[in-house]
Amino acid sequence: MSIRLQELVDRLGGQLIGDANTTVTGIAPLDTADSSQMTFLSNPKLRSQAAQTKAAALILSQADDPAIGASYSGARIITHNPYAYFARAAQFFAEQAAIPLVPGIHSSATVHPDAEVDPTAYIGPHVTIDANVVIAEHAIIEAGCFIGRDAKVGGRTHFYANVSFYAGCEIGQRGIIHSGAVIGADGFGFANDKGTWVKIPQTGRVVIGDDVEIGASTTIDRGTLADTIIEDDVKLDNQIHIGHNCHIGAHTAMAGCVGVAGSAKIGKYCTFGGAAMVLGQLTIVDNVHISAASMVSRSILEPGHYTGFYPLAKNAEWEKTAAIVRNLGSMREKIRELEKTIKSLTEKK
Amino acid sequence: MSIRLQELVDRLGGQLIGDANTTVTGIAPLDTADSSQMTFLSNPKLRSQAAQTKAAALILSQADDPAIGASYSGARIITHNPYAYFARAAQFFAEQAAIPLVPGIHSSATVHPDAEVDPTAYIGPHVTIDANVVIAEHAIIEAGCFIGRDAKVGGRTHFYANVSFYAGCEIGQRGIIHSGAVIGADGFGFANDKGTWVKIPQTGRVVIGDDVEIGASTTIDRGTLADTIIEDDVKLDNQIHIGHNCHIGAHTAMAGCVGVAGSAKIGKYCTFGGAAMVLGQLTIVDNVHISAASMVSRSILEPGHYTGFYPLAKNAEWEKTAAIVRNLGSMREKIRELEKTIKSLTEKK
Amino acid sequence: MSIRLQELVDRLGGQLIGDANTTVTGIAPLDTADSSQMTFLSNPKLRSQAAQTKAAALILSQADDPAIGASYSGARIITHNPYAYFARAAQFFAEQAAIPLVPGIHSSATVHPDAEVDPTAYIGPHVTIDANVVIAEHAIIEAGCFIGRDAKVGGRTHFYANVSFYAGCEIGQRGIIHSGAVIGADGFGFANDKGTWVKIPQTGRVVIGDDVEIGASTTIDRGTLADTIIEDDVKLDNQIHIGHNCHIGAHTAMAGCVGVAGSAKIGKYCTFGGAAMVLGQLTIVDNVHISAASMVSRSILEPGHYTGFYPLAKNAEWEKTAAIVRNLGSMREKIRELEKTIKSLTEKK
Repeated sequence: MSIRLQELVDRLGGQLIGDANTTVTGIAPLDTADSSQMTFLSNPKLRSQAAQTKAAALILSQADDPAIGASYSGARIITHNPYAYFARAAQFFAEQAAIPLVPGIHSSATVHPDAEVDPTAYIGPHVTIDANVVIAEHAIIEAGCFIGRDAKVGGRTHFYANVSFYAGCEIGQRGIIHSGAVIGADGFGFANDKGTWVKIPQTGRVVIGDDVEIGASTTIDRGTLADTIIEDDVKLDNQIHIGHNCHIGAHTAMAGCVGVAGSAKIGKYCTFGGAAMVLGQLTIVDNVHISAASMVSRSILEPGHYTGFYPLAKNAEWEKTAAIVRNLGSMREKIRELEKTIKSLTEKK
Repeated sequence: MSIRLQELVDRLGGQLIGDANTTVTGIAPLDTADSSQMTFLSNPKLRSQAAQTKAAALILSQADDPAIGASYSGARIITHNPYAYFARAAQFFAEQAAIPLVPGIHSSATVHPDAEVDPTAYIGPHVTIDANVVIAEHAIIEAGCFIGRDAKVGGRTHFYANVSFYAGCEIGQRGIIHSGAVIGADGFGFANDKGTWVKIPQTGRVVIGDDVEIGASTTIDRGTLADTIIEDDVKLDNQIHIGHNCHIGAHTAMAGCVGVAGSAKIGKYCTFGGAAMVLGQLTIVDNVHISAASMVSRSILEPGHYTGFYPLAKNAEWEKTAAIVRNLGSMREKIRELEKTIKSLTEKK
Repeated sequence: MSIRLQELVDRLGGQLIGDANTTVTGIAPLDTADSSQMTFLSNPKLRSQAAQTKAAALILSQADDPAIGASYSGARIITHNPYAYFARAAQFFAEQAAIPLVPGIHSSATVHPDAEVDPTAYIGPHVTIDANVVIAEHAIIEAGCFIGRDAKVGGRTHFYANVSFYAGCEIGQRGIIHSGAVIGADGFGFANDKGTWVKIPQTGRVVIGDDVEIGASTTIDRGTLADTIIEDDVKLDNQIHIGHNCHIGAHTAMAGCVGVAGSAKIGKYCTFGGAAMVLGQLTIVDNVHISAASMVSRSILEPGHYTGFYPLAKNAEWEKTAAIVRNLGSMREKIRELEKTIKSLTEKK
């Protein structure tokens, strides 16, 4: 499998400098790419590494080109965003290498007669599809998935093996859901009556837009009365928990192990580092970035970068500082007393 | 589907004021309920919203009734706990709307001949039930579940799709286990021998009481020698990890992403906010409430509300305070020196 | 099932003192073992409990023997590591009690004709095994597992029910993977192009060594271009997330809910407490121990024990100290002013 650079540029854009007939077979990092491959420079700090790469072609920005062009003898593709260009080129090579699944319903799958499965879709072994489900064109549902009654899966959406997708939930086009993910389980809703919990039925759905990726073992709960909403192009890593009635704005991305409690409303273009936590009922506006391991305990109404985790130290040092943290009130008191004493000393003068 | 208010009150109790022949079709929040629905007031702050609701009927407390009764023209149901009444009314409507599963074993399920499945139970597609398992009356085991040898599932307990329930484990009546949950995997037990880990077999079970709900992707490990115990009416949200040999007291509830290390003993009527963590071997007494994202590193022998997470700030501010936290020891030292200096200044006088 | 102590010592080593014909049927803790069982003393603090145990035999160290031997009348097995000896003895009894699975492929499993399954392996109900997969001798693949194209499973490795093992991934010998684990899902890799995410294909694999145990619902992502590597004898508890391109050194153990972001390189013989988090791209050397709930935000190049979590307090106290933490900058400022004032006071003298 190889491609001429001219053909690649015809597909993906960019300005090609050098031999348009150069062929490449794949894409690799600056330091490991060989002369059959292409590579990319997205970080200006790596310019000197780029100048020495053995790759047959280099994707780079206009800004980096003058420094590299002089010494690098391969072909160059100039683009405004080399990293995104790398991603699209890598997608091209991955698609070429992929072994396509043959459309159709595996003989061991259980598909309800009232479900509607597009003939171009793939339904793998041991899949269960319940009544009135709609599976659109070119969707892929791998082995062992469960799709509950009335659910809808959009075109070219791909469920990896062992996904559980509860009744009534919907996902748009070009989505990806990884194994072990659970979409539409009951939200955590109980009324307490004299110490005993009374379950509040969770009758809303989960409604997911287009181009959403959901990682392995991530769980998104259905709404209580209204729906839990995941807008277009949201990217969720593994082991994330999204509580009932949440609303996640378009293009927001969350790294692994993030938890969002019920009814949180999160804006567009936000990012969350791994294991960040968001309390329920909060509002977070667009363009907020939360660091890993940080706890969001109040609404954030101003865009920006927020952090809150205890700094790591050698254990012995931590024990010392943690003991002081526990007693910060008395430290503050001491400072106040010192201030008073000094004030009286000064006044005496 | 609709019900006369008199019939609802006959089922659920409460004092009905107004037209007993009013019919309602469902329950909705104060602001969205329409004239075919009922609603509820559980938070006195929402009294003015309640007075303006369009709902045909309002559930409220005796205390809130005088303020509302004057202006609200619909029927009222007075009860000591409107939120719990809402939950029970919602359960009633949800049950009416539910499409019942037809009892029986799906033709694609694999049920060991020595398993005992009550004829009123439902066993879904691609389920595996091993030897000597007992499934009681009206239990529901959805598609793709695995139930290991000698396990017991109580009456009316509901496993959603793709639950893994290991050999020997037991759950009581009216339980709910959501998709992806794993009950009875080996606890994390190893002896270290010159750097290499030697596995300690985990031969205990997980024993779960009645009315327990377990969220999606939650994992509860089996005991090492004795059993891991989850008492009645415990409610566990998604993505929770309960280590081996733990004992969780009745009516305790944990929000998503909580982790409890091995051999912790947790009392009754406790609540844990999301992502709270509990170290192993600890004891937590009844009626303890742990805030989200808080780390319990020692036993808690006194009921109350406990918290421990680093407060969120703008990243630049966090960097400043975190640097100071790292050096709190030197700050304390400075204060001590100031105290000494001032003492000597004062004494000189 | 019982064994003569002499036979046990012949298998597991140790110095036997007392009646070699004593038979034991199992192993239990010091306080619950009865006269048909053996027990072990690994913690010198429990010497007095050991002296009173009813067990027929006691595993203990040379150092503890003089204190116990005088009063304890049962047989003793002296060994350098009683806890590891306990583990191995418990393994022996567990193996005796285990009900062996009959090798072969269950009639409901779906095995691709181009897969290679050793005849001594067990393939359970509703398993899916894709093309070119290799399953080695005595491997056990329980119900509902999915194993993707070109994957390899080593000899005597055991997958519990509902494991998802993506295409191309490999695990060595004597491994254990618990239910709900997902090995080889796509790493979280996207390039951002004007606010929209462009997926970076994840074409590496997950390569796992020998003697690795992976807990329930743990997820390990495949590499982007190179592989994610888990070396021999790594032990991962439940609900752990390992990002793409990580490298985890041999004999390292992680407790439940740990998260490791992409491209982290972690050494050998490390331990991580529950819910510890590691940022991406970091290096952690051998023999580093991270406390539970601690956030590793920079590389650790020196072995040792590191901690970083906010200490728990009663909520009212936490509110007080957290408010001070938020304002530590102004506290430091006050101290500086005090220092200046005192300096000027002192100089005036």
